[in-house]
Amino acid sequence: MPLSKRKLKELRELTHKKHRDEEKKFIVEGVRLVQEAVKSNFKVLEAFYTRDMLEHPAGKTLFKTLVKKTSNVHQITTSEMEIIAETVTFQGIMAVLRQKEHFVDSMLQKNQSRSYLVAFDGVSDPGNVGSMVRTCDWFGVDGIILGRNSVELYNPKVLRATMGGMFHLPIAEGVDLPLTISKAKQLGYKVYVTQLMGETHFDRANYESKSLIVFGNEAWGVSDQVKKLADVHLAIRRYGAGESLNVGVACGVVLSAIRRLYDE
Amino acid sequence: MPLSKRKLKELRELTHKKHRDEEKKFIVEGVRLVQEAVKSNFKVLEAFYTRDMLEHPAGKTLFKTLVKKTSNVHQITTSEMEIIAETVTFQGIMAVLRQKEHFVDSMLQKNQSRSYLVAFDGVSDPGNVGSMVRTCDWFGVDGIILGRNSVELYNPKVLRATMGGMFHLPIAEGVDLPLTISKAKQLGYKVYVTQLMGETHFDRANYESKSLIVFGNEAWGVSDQVKKLADVHLAIRRYGAGESLNVGVACGVVLSAIRRLYDE
Repeated sequence: MPLSKRKLKELRELTHKKHRDEEKKFIVEGVRLVQEAVKSNFKVLEAFYTRDMLEHPAGKTLFKTLVKKTSNVHQITTSEMEIIAETVTFQGIMAVLRQKEHFVDSMLQKNQSRSYLVAFDGVSDPGNVGSMVRTCDWFGVDGIILGRNSVELYNPKVLRATMGGMFHLPIAEGVDLPLTISKAKQLGYKVYVTQLMGETHFDRANYESKSLIVFGNEAWGVSDQVKKLADVHLAIRRYGAGESLNVGVACGVVLSAIRRLYDE
Repeated sequence: MPLSKRKLKELRELTHKKHRDEEKKFIVEGVRLVQEAVKSNFKVLEAFYTRDMLEHPAGKTLFKTLVKKTSNVHQITTSEMEIIAETVTFQGIMAVLRQKEHFVDSMLQKNQSRSYLVAFDGVSDPGNVGSMVRTCDWFGVDGIILGRNSVELYNPKVLRATMGGMFHLPIAEGVDLPLTISKAKQLGYKVYVTQLMGETHFDRANYESKSLIVFGNEAWGVSDQVKKLADVHLAIRRYGAGESLNVGVACGVVLSAIRRLYDE
């Protein structure tokens, strides 16, 4: 049965942030991400696939696990998929998921001896935000705090670049960072910001068992208000002629060093 | 005087690799990259700008230094710029540069006690290649070796992502990597490849004063042939649930550790 015009419109609208926010839904596309969604504890509301997906072994396996998770699985035509899918390269499957709200307060107050959180302050490129989530997932960060001025997590480009990372760790969205950082400090967190002219080399810093590391905007870095609140200003020393380092790369460099210093 | 149809076609063709290869030319766009080009020892063949560029102080300054470097500086209309420019966001200035050939043999044989080279084996995403050049530039790598199977350096997306890094260090293109690695070993280089299941943690390795580090394709990693030739197989330990790390991030993590270990 073809999708009704109304349904097509409804799905198409989820490519816009405004509608995602209102509906508290989002879309993931492609075998890889839908697989991760099915394995996660996110609620899968409905899914759509094209016939050719079933011709691939991975697609067939995915279909079988998908129908266990939701009864709303529909075969659609390629032209319908082209209307509702965001990605240019054809993926053959998409799922609509319920957004999950993570509260920053519970993230901070979790009763554990070690907590290792990362905040994004105005990171504006979707590819960077996604790649940083992926990096945090690799280095076992306990939670991510997305400041109000950063790109939205449910942006399709962000989701793709996370490579499924957003299903593996709690991410609080739309957070008031100065307020949260003040709270974190009261709860015993040490707050580190990364900046071009920071006075402490990331490799020589003392990382406490409760650490919150803040990465800033691609052009302007961490905002002044957040810088003032921070305990430590980290820098990555430059050895060559480059003017700056990509924020996603800086994130990986710093997180790898924290892990090394924790381990020692 | 408007650009002739022939000239417009000639410039437009430089957005294709085939023509860049034949002509040994390439295009850089935007104030930032053209500034870097003018400061570099690359030959600027000609440049085109629109009137509104001169209204910005940075544009005016750039214009003054540009005319010292080449007499071929032409004002064109916005619609002409739209035809010849690659970038969607309007930049106001572009320059045509002569490609520079760096030979990998002279890179390897440079007579210096320390040499620290990086090779890309099949890195296929232009954003990754560009970001890795930028990272190598930050960490003061002595030269980059682009394998035949990697994205071309003069791809506009690569150039943009380097943030000018490609003007700061020698980059050899279209290199036969297995052959070059064999030569490098004969010349006393130790060769390191990064791979998901490498047996040496990047943070515990012994980096020799002549080191060649190889990063591989986004999906398949370093090719088997190159892996076999390598002396050390580096890994970055995973602490979380992520399946992989972005190759550009891995590049930053490893290079930062080499710098630390060299310094100690």
